[in-house]
Order: sequence, then C-alpha cells, then structure tokens
Amino acid sequence: MKNIILVGSGNVATHLGIALQKGNYQIVQVYSKSIENAKKLAKKLNTNFTNDLTQLKSADLIIVSVNDDAISSVLSQMKNTAIVHTSGSIGLDIFKENFSNFGVFYPLQTFNKEVNVNISEIPFCIEGNNLAFEKQLTTLAKQLSNNVVLMDSEQRKQVHIAAVFACNFSNQMFSIADDLLAEKNLDFKILLPLIKQTIAKLSANKPKAVQTGPAKRNDNNIIQEHIKHISKQEVKDLYQEISNNIIRTYE
Amino acid sequence: MKNIILVGSGNVATHLGIALQKGNYQIVQVYSKSIENAKKLAKKLNTNFTNDLTQLKSADLIIVSVNDDAISSVLSQMKNTAIVHTSGSIGLDIFKENFSNFGVFYPLQTFNKEVNVNISEIPFCIEGNNLAFEKQLTTLAKQLSNNVVLMDSEQRKQVHIAAVFACNFSNQMFSIADDLLAEKNLDFKILLPLIKQTIAKLSANKPKAVQTGPAKRNDNNIIQEHIKHISKQEVKDLYQEISNNIIRTYE
Repeated sequence: MKNIILVGSGNVATHLGIALQKGNYQIVQVYSKSIENAKKLAKKLNTNFTNDLTQLKSADLIIVSVNDDAISSVLSQMKNTAIVHTSGSIGLDIFKENFSNFGVFYPLQTFNKEVNVNISEIPFCIEGNNLAFEKQLTTLAKQLSNNVVLMDSEQRKQVHIAAVFACNFSNQMFSIADDLLAEKNLDFKILLPLIKQTIAKLSANKPKAVQTGPAKRNDNNIIQEHIKHISKQEVKDLYQEISNNIIRTYE
Repeated sequence: MKNIILVGSGNVATHLGIALQKGNYQIVQVYSKSIENAKKLAKKLNTNFTNDLTQLKSADLIIVSVNDDAISSVLSQMKNTAIVHTSGSIGLDIFKENFSNFGVFYPLQTFNKEVNVNISEIPFCIEGNNLAFEKQLTTLAKQLSNNVVLMDSEQRKQVHIAAVFACNFSNQMFSIADDLLAEKNLDFKILLPLIKQTIAKLSANKPKAVQTGPAKRNDNNIIQEHIKHISKQEVKDLYQEISNNIIRTYE
C-alpha cells in the first residue's frame, strides 16, 4: 500500500497527506469538489489534482476525508477500490456492498491547517471489513503514530461521545469561568496554572480519584453561597446540576 | 517582615513554609492542633512547634492555613499581630476588630504534600486591610511567585466560583468520559492528546473562540444520536443541558 489518493482537502486531509509523504508514501492525487482547494493541497504535496471523481487515478488506497454529510455522495461515485474514511461518527456500514476492502482510519484529534501537530502522539482508531485489510491499515497507521487502536464502529461512536464531554463540554466550563471572571474585571489567564495542574494529574490518575472542591466534599453551604453569587439563571442551574452529579458520584 | 509563624500543617502550610524558607524567610514556629502534625512539619522546616495557640512566639507575620471552618476559632484565640489567612472562600471581614494589620494571602492552586509544584507560577491573590500592609504582603508574595494579583474579597469569591467550573466541573466531564469509555472496554488515556490540545489552545485564545463539536455547530442530529446512545439518564440530561448552554452561547 504505497500509492494513496486523498479525497478531500481540509484539515485532516492536509495533515494526513503531509505525514504520509514524510513516511515515504506516495500521494498520487488530491481530489476536492473545489478545484482551487484541490490545487492548493496538491501544490503543497507536489502531486496531481482533480475535482472530478470519475478521473481518479489508480492507487492502492483512497482516503476519504470530507465532511460527514458528503461521504455518502462521494462513495456513490466511486468504482471498487481499497478505501477508508476518517470520520469518528460514521460507521463501517456506509460503504455497503460497493467495495470489497473498506475501513475507517480515524485520527482522534482536532486539526487546524495552520497549527502543527505532533502526529506521532495522535491515537489512530482503525477498523477494517476483513482481517487482512485491517492489518494493512494498522501497518499504515503505525508508520504515522505510536498510538494505534483497533476499534469497532460502536466503540468509535462511544469515543466520540466521550470526547464531547472531555473536550467540548470541559471547554464550555472554561468559557463560563471566563465570563464569570470578566464580570469582576479579572483575566481568565489567572486560572491557567490550576487548569494545567488538573490535566497533569490525569497522566497518572483516574479523574474520579483526583476530584476536589465543594461538591466532592458535599459542602452544601458553599454550593448554595456560590449559586447565590452567580448572576445568570442558566449558569446557576448548571452549577447545581453538575454538583448533584458529582455528589452522587461519590455517594 | 522576616519572621513568620505558620498556623496549620496541611498542604498549603507545607508548600508555603518550604517556599518561604527558600526565599530566606525565617519560619520561627509551626502550630497545629495535632502535636504530631506540628512536629512533622517543624522537623521538615527545622524549627519550633506547638499545639497551644497561647504559646505562640513573637513574629512579624502569622499565616493561618487551616480549614475554612476552623479559621474563626483560631483567630479568637490570638492576640493582636500582623496576620493573613490563605483561603479563597473567606472574606477579610473574618478578622473583625481584633487585629490592626490583616489580609489574605491566597495561592490559587491545588496543593498536595507529596507532589512538588512550581510555586513561582502560582497566582497569589493578595488583599490587605490597609495600603501599607497590602504592599508588604505583595512584596512577600513576589518573593515566591511571578504572578501576584491584588484582589478584593468579592473578586476572590468570583475566582473561586470560576475555578469550580474550570477545574472541578471540567474534571467531572473527564470522569463521565472515563465511565463512557469503560462501558466499551476503552482506556481513558486515548483522550489525553485531545484534552492536552484543548488546554494548549487556551494559552493564546479565549475558550469561546476555540469551541468545536456538535453543539457548537448546532447539529441536533448528532446531539440526539449521542443522547440515545448514553445509558444513564443523568448523563443524558447533562449532555442535553450543556449542549443547550453551548448552543445559546453561539446564537
């Protein structure tokens, strides 16, 4: 599996393309529905480009990194080929009967074209429709990353839900904290050392083992005092509900 | 202000004592209601100890680092002296009329006796009842940390509420993620690179500017699909409520 086509020209396609080239794989073509975007990424990778799915070259593997909504329509225009998508939310069943070797090649990270990431630390979640192909995909992923995990579509969906809690929802907690501080003319940066310490503990401990604070201590005086001081009703409610959840966690 | 008494022998007293000694301050005595704990910390600091508040030596400053609940009773047993407490939740008013120089010396960090922390990065929140004393406290704090902030009791309370969201509640999000992964035999460690990336973005960006995920995109199909897959009702409810909060944030 040496010659690869990238279908898509977004963040994931860009980072994968660069990493695969560094790993001595050949990106033989880039497709994007926008010819400008296809050209831009092809230039970066010094390869061919197209905006016509009927004009794909022959390759050992096609990596489909387009928006979840567009995967189905892209697949419907393809001939049989070894193929993977890179989505955490879409199951293996999307490939249906049109392909004989198909799978998922899902890097568990938020990418941004402008920000370099150390791809070798990114977990790659791999699934193939048959053992031989899954093994090929695993070998490919191991060229990119030290953190390769075989995972079925159910597990991948669960990882995605867990990531919503661990990343999106924790970021919303930071966002609320930022608003609260701004109300009193304080800078969010004052919390960064505490946040970094909270994360540092997770390398060696389960989050449940390192919880602290009023809800963990079931200190209802402080909880009610805090809620009284919060101005927005919606934030008061979240404080109470997440505290209740913590209290029940340690009952 | 060179000679300091530590009242308390817990995590904060221990870390402050060690840091102050390194900064060439003299810890002249350690008090704890438990004579064993007093002795243990005094030994670490090579100084005197007592479990009797009427036997305190003379000093330039007394630092009270006991549980919030115990501060009031400790203060009632003291003669007039320059004094601070180290609590984020307790206001300046606790000192009442018994002291002429009093203040707050609050390191915004979770301490653990067994874990070394880089005290120079910890924000110290300082408040004094008069300008001259507040200036002395600021000078002292700047010997320990590069991050010293003057803050009144209202602001300090708000920082504490914000820290509950940013640290305790985000840690609960990690805890829920851990439970979700465990249900499908997956290790929480798979999320660590994504969590670290989420935090890394905060050094240069407001949390609001770097949010991602289904709620940010107001993608109700994925939100409902995720909620359907969560087994615990309480976790379903949290997913919906925090998503609602995110959706309204970006309306």
